[in-house]
Formats: sequence, C-alpha cells, structure tokens
Amino acid sequence: MSLSIDFEPVQRELRDRDACAFVHVGREADPTLRSLARTAHLEGELAVVVTADQALLLAPEAPDAAAEAYPDAQILPAGEDIPTGTRVATVLDDLGLSGTVLAPRTIPHDAALYLENEGFEVASTAAVEDAREAKTDAEQLRQTTVQSAACAGMRRVAAVLAAAEPGDLTEDGHGHGHGHDSSPHPEPDDHDHDGPLIWEDAPLTALRLRREADAAMAAEGVAPGTTSIGVAGRTATPRSDDPIEPGDTVVVDLAPHGPDGYHGRLVRTFVVDGDGGWTRRAQLAVETALDAALGELEPGVTAGAVLTELEAEVAAYGFDGDETAAYGVGLERREAPLLGELPDDTELDAGTVLALDAGVTDAEEGTVRLAELVAITDDGGRALGAFPRSLSP
Amino acid sequence: MSLSIDFEPVQRELRDRDACAFVHVGREADPTLRSLARTAHLEGELAVVVTADQALLLAPEAPDAAAEAYPDAQILPAGEDIPTGTRVATVLDDLGLSGTVLAPRTIPHDAALYLENEGFEVASTAAVEDAREAKTDAEQLRQTTVQSAACAGMRRVAAVLAAAEPGDLTEDGHGHGHGHDSSPHPEPDDHDHDGPLIWEDAPLTALRLRREADAAMAAEGVAPGTTSIGVAGRTATPRSDDPIEPGDTVVVDLAPHGPDGYHGRLVRTFVVDGDGGWTRRAQLAVETALDAALGELEPGVTAGAVLTELEAEVAAYGFDGDETAAYGVGLERREAPLLGELPDDTELDAGTVLALDAGVTDAEEGTVRLAELVAITDDGGRALGAFPRSLSP
Repeated sequence: MSLSIDFEPVQRELRDRDACAFVHVGREADPTLRSLARTAHLEGELAVVVTADQALLLAPEAPDAAAEAYPDAQILPAGEDIPTGTRVATVLDDLGLSGTVLAPRTIPHDAALYLENEGFEVASTAAVEDAREAKTDAEQLRQTTVQSAACAGMRRVAAVLAAAEPGDLTEDGHGHGHGHDSSPHPEPDDHDHDGPLIWEDAPLTALRLRREADAAMAAEGVAPGTTSIGVAGRTATPRSDDPIEPGDTVVVDLAPHGPDGYHGRLVRTFVVDGDGGWTRRAQLAVETALDAALGELEPGVTAGAVLTELEAEVAAYGFDGDETAAYGVGLERREAPLLGELPDDTELDAGTVLALDAGVTDAEEGTVRLAELVAITDDGGRALGAFPRSLSP
Repeated sequence: MSLSIDFEPVQRELRDRDACAFVHVGREADPTLRSLARTAHLEGELAVVVTADQALLLAPEAPDAAAEAYPDAQILPAGEDIPTGTRVATVLDDLGLSGTVLAPRTIPHDAALYLENEGFEVASTAAVEDAREAKTDAEQLRQTTVQSAACAGMRRVAAVLAAAEPGDLTEDGHGHGHGHDSSPHPEPDDHDHDGPLIWEDAPLTALRLRREADAAMAAEGVAPGTTSIGVAGRTATPRSDDPIEPGDTVVVDLAPHGPDGYHGRLVRTFVVDGDGGWTRRAQLAVETALDAALGELEPGVTAGAVLTELEAEVAAYGFDGDETAAYGVGLERREAPLLGELPDDTELDAGTVLALDAGVTDAEEGTVRLAELVAITDDGGRALGAFPRSLSP
C-alpha cells in the first residue's frame, strides 16, 4: 500500500497568504520533511517544494529510489556542490515563481538565507504541522499494522514471563535474596521462599525481556524503537540487569515504528505470582480510565474532557490521577496534540490518533500502567489493535 | 560505558572566531545535535549551548532522564511556551555573554532569528561536522559492538540459507518454475531440476530473510535499521516476496545502529548450490579489493588512493570497478567523509571510520558485493569486527 500525500492544506495556505511556494529542507528523519515525502532510506539533505499545482522532491542521489518512494511528485536531482537552498531557488526561478516562500519554522537557517539571497522572502507557516495532527485512513491503517507488531512483541514478553519459574534459592545458586526469606527446606511450589525468576536456565532480567520483545517486533518487519521494561516493587531504582522476582510489577512499554516512520504504542503490566490486592485494584483503575476516555472520543471533544475522564476514573479507585496522559502518535513517538500542554477547551478533530496512558505507582507495591492507541472517528473512539489487559502473563 | 563528549574542538573554534558561545537546536534524531549530546530517547526540541568553560543541555522535559543521558553537562529545563531560541538567549544573558554565537548551518531558522532578535549575531560553523569525522576510541568501541550485532544478524541469515533446501517442483507445489526445467522424474539430489528454496515448509523469500536478520540483531540490543536483501540472477527486478532459487546470488546488506545512534555496516553475498565460476571469480575480486584498500589505510592516506585501490583490484580480475565506494559511518549510516565526493588529494585523519564497499554485477549471473567497517589508526587500517566472506552459507 502506498501512502498518498495530500498537499491541499499546504496549497490552501499558499492561496490564503499569497505565497508562490512552500519549501522545506531536511533529512528523512525530520518528521516534517517525512510527512511531505514518504521516503524510505533516502540519504542526504532532501528538499520538498509545493507550488499551486505541483509537488517536487529534490534528492541528492538515487533518483530512481526517490521516484519509487515518492510516486506522487516530480523528482529532481539536487545540485552537486550547490547548497540546497540555492538549488531550490533555481527551481523556483525556472518555474517563473517569485515573491514569498512559506516554510516550517524548523527549515535549516542556511536554506532560508540562501533563498533570501536569491530574492525570495521567507515566511513561517505551521500548515504542515497542523495538517499532521489528523491522520488519513491510509495512515491509520499503517499505524494499525505497526500496532499489530507491538502486540506480537507483547505476546512474546507474556510468553517468556509465563514460562519463567521462581528459582530455588538454596539449590541452584541463581537467587540473590533481595530480602526474601530463604527457607532451609524449600518446596517446589512454595512461592513464599522463591528466588528471582529463572527463564532458560538464567535469571530473567529487564534487559533479556527487552531483547525478546525487540526481536519479536523486528520479525514482524517493524523497528523496535524505544522499548522500556520497568521493574518496580523494590525500593531501589531497578537496573535493567537486575533479576525480576515473583510479585514484581513488570511494566512493558513498546513504541515501534514501521518502515514509513509511523509509530504504535502499547503499554502493559504483568505480575508473575502476584498475590496483592493492590495490583488488582490498580489494574482495574487504569483499565476503567482508558475505557472511559475512549468512550469520550468524538470529533470536537476537548482536550480537557479527555484528561479529566482519565484522571477522575483513576481517582475514583482511590489513587492519585496524576500519572495519566494523552498525546498524539504518528511520525513521532509523541507529537501534537499533547493534550496536557493545550488549553482545556481545545477541540480535537476526526483523524487524531492518540495514546491514552494511565498508571498508578506505590513505593511498596510497584507500578501498574496501561497505554493504547486510539483514533477519533466520526463514529466515536476506535481502538487501533487489541491486546488483553490482564496482569497475569 | 558512557561516551564522554569532547567539546574542545568547539571551544577552540570559539576562541579562534572570538565568539561567546556555540548553539545548536534540534531533535535527538538530528545527528549534529546527537553528536553534542549523547541522549537516548529525550523527546521534543533540545538545545546544546557550549561556552568557553561549560556545556549546557536544555531539555523540554524529563530533566532526570536528560541528566542520566548527558552526565557531562548542566541540564536546564526548556521554557514552557517560550521558543527554544529565546530560551537559549536568556541562558546566554544570565551567563553575561553577548556578541557572536556560532551555530551549525542546519540550526532551525526560527532559533537563529530568535537569537538575533535578542541581540546576538549568529554565524555559521562547520566545527562540529568536522570533528565528527574522527571517532574517539570510545566511539570506535561502540561501533565495534554494533558491528558484532550485525555479525549476529549475518550468522542468522547464513544459518537459514544453509538449512534451506531446493523444493521439489512436481511434488510439493511450492515451486514456481522461473524458467528452470521441471523434470517429470525429479531425484532428491538432482539440483538441476529443483524449484525455489524451501525453509520451514515455505518458500524462502528476501522478506523472510530480512525479518530473520532483523530479529537476530534486535535480540543483540541494536536497532536493525535499513536491512536490504538483494536477490539477483534473474532478469526481472526481484520483488522482496519473490522466492529465492538455488544459484541466485543473495546480497545481504546490514546497517544496524546501537542505542547511542552509532552505526555498523556489513554486506555479504551468499549463493546456495552455486555452480558458477563467475560468482567465485567475482567474490575473489571484491575480497581482494577490500583487503588492498584496508592495507592502504594510515593517517594521511588520500581519498583518491583508497578509491583507486578498490577500483584497480576489481578491474584486475576483469570486472568493471565502478561499483566500489568508501564512506564514513557513525551517527549516520553514510556520512562525511564521502570519498567519492572529495578531491582526490583529500587526506584522511586517524580515527576515521569507513565502510569499504565493493561489488560487481552481471545481468545474467547476479551481483556479488562485500562491505566492511574499518578504522584508520596510527598503526594503519583496522577492521571493526570480522565475518567470513565465503559465498557458501
């Protein structure tokens, strides 16, 4: 599936502001550039030029690869040894264009100066950033695919945790104590006296879990990104190579992205051999909060309404609601709209893809946190992908 | 291991140009920003300020994470709702600094304008880009670790190819012909009549190989990046879901990067059930070329000498030498020095990490290509990591 690009918001801005062209310059990793040119692995400094009736991509090399990555636009080679801004000015001159050029505020300073040197006026526009907030159906489909890969990573983590067994402190030497009682006569099923979890003959650590999750996601064809495994329930800050013990809350935070740069986000919490009422109550609180916020979503819902719903439901279970958040997810792992930084009455549009994120922490008990990807559609909130929320792996 | 950052080249530039500070603004994915702040997963727009006697990181959130990622510098919160450029100007004012600020040419245009609005003169410097070309020992060690992960990915590909077996066209239905003869009475060991390679009960494709490589690299804790599997030996452009056939050249191009952003690069070519003298001669040509170029490396070697060595050795075997290249590898997959774009007499410094890359292509026979990571040291060229070059998996 090719993601077509809609240049209409940019072209509308050109008309409204009487500008001859929109220009951005940057590398592919720049999310603003990438939103304008669905490239994949084009190297060097790229430029996108949008005029009233066409879009151009200037790529320093591999014009064939550029054409394949960017079927909607005319591809021009970038000039060798010519600064990209000067090359863009030449292209605009050749098209008979002059006057004001609009650019994102993050266009490289030298590109803006080269355009000014060639007689263009450079003015800032937020049109691209604003348009990025509402995802097209094709973008949502792409994010759903990435989210499926996140689910595969989470399944792998759950499978490893389910297969892990508490080690026997007195016999296998893997145990480290950590304040657990060490019985002189351990029974195989006596979890009260167990050591750290053992998986494939070695202590299970956050680092091992992360690598399993990343391998599973990579096998699905996505980039694992910023996987984080938080092991709480101990007072000291857990290090990633610290063993995981029975009863520890294990917060698994996955944020992979696909080849086109679109991100997923999935957070789950697992407890092996948990016996605490606290974790079950905490899980119920954050689960209810996510469902309540999802139920609020519709075009025009305010940022304040979504955040209030998340916080109020967590608070209703007697927890502090300040570990809740909602934020846009797309070409960046966390992008606009950042609901917590907006005025409460900011209305959200159809097409907005959000991570709903809720957690509660207790110094003794650990952390329980869930996050999921949802879209605002004309019919209300829609979850992108699904994964069980159970604490038990 | 923490990668310390050497700000001395930037501070020398400040002295030489009588400037009060160096400033860059950008997201973590920006390689220039990242070379100045070894952050890992800090979100939002960051700023680095280097003065004559200190370095500062402005991060919009998570100052604890910033301090952990950036132990060498003072961390300041970025101002909420204040443009980053203005916030930087305030910091410089608080330090009693005024006059000229140096910045990379790619500093965002708005940041430069905000600094100018606050009375600073902004001038461009290439000091950071230039300093990035020579890697410190710590950076080389990091790249060696990433290269080890690339070797793990390559081992996985080789293992899959070694386990794959030619399918029986007439019995299992997986075969697709592709111009191979289909004998009415196939023998299990008669490769002349085999269909596409079968692995784990399904046809082996470039896509399946890529996912195996990526999973193996992710399991080593690196990001798989831009893995490409080129299957040649057929006249049509191979699609990634086309089956691989016995005798096809399979070019595996791995370019993973570690959590700090440093890249590796490893390219190998495999042939299952190859019978051709061409592929063996091609392999010998590119292998000899890499070794010859490695032998040339020493501080002060010219770009022209390295490229000539690569091309001449390939040509000595009767092949076209124009598929050879040498380029820097570091925070970008392909970065300065790009030897092919430099004057031939450009001298390379100790610490430069290069990919040496050589291949030959024949429309009928396919492609054989090898690439490896090497460093220029005071004692000559040094390979970062090692992996067999045999065509046989």
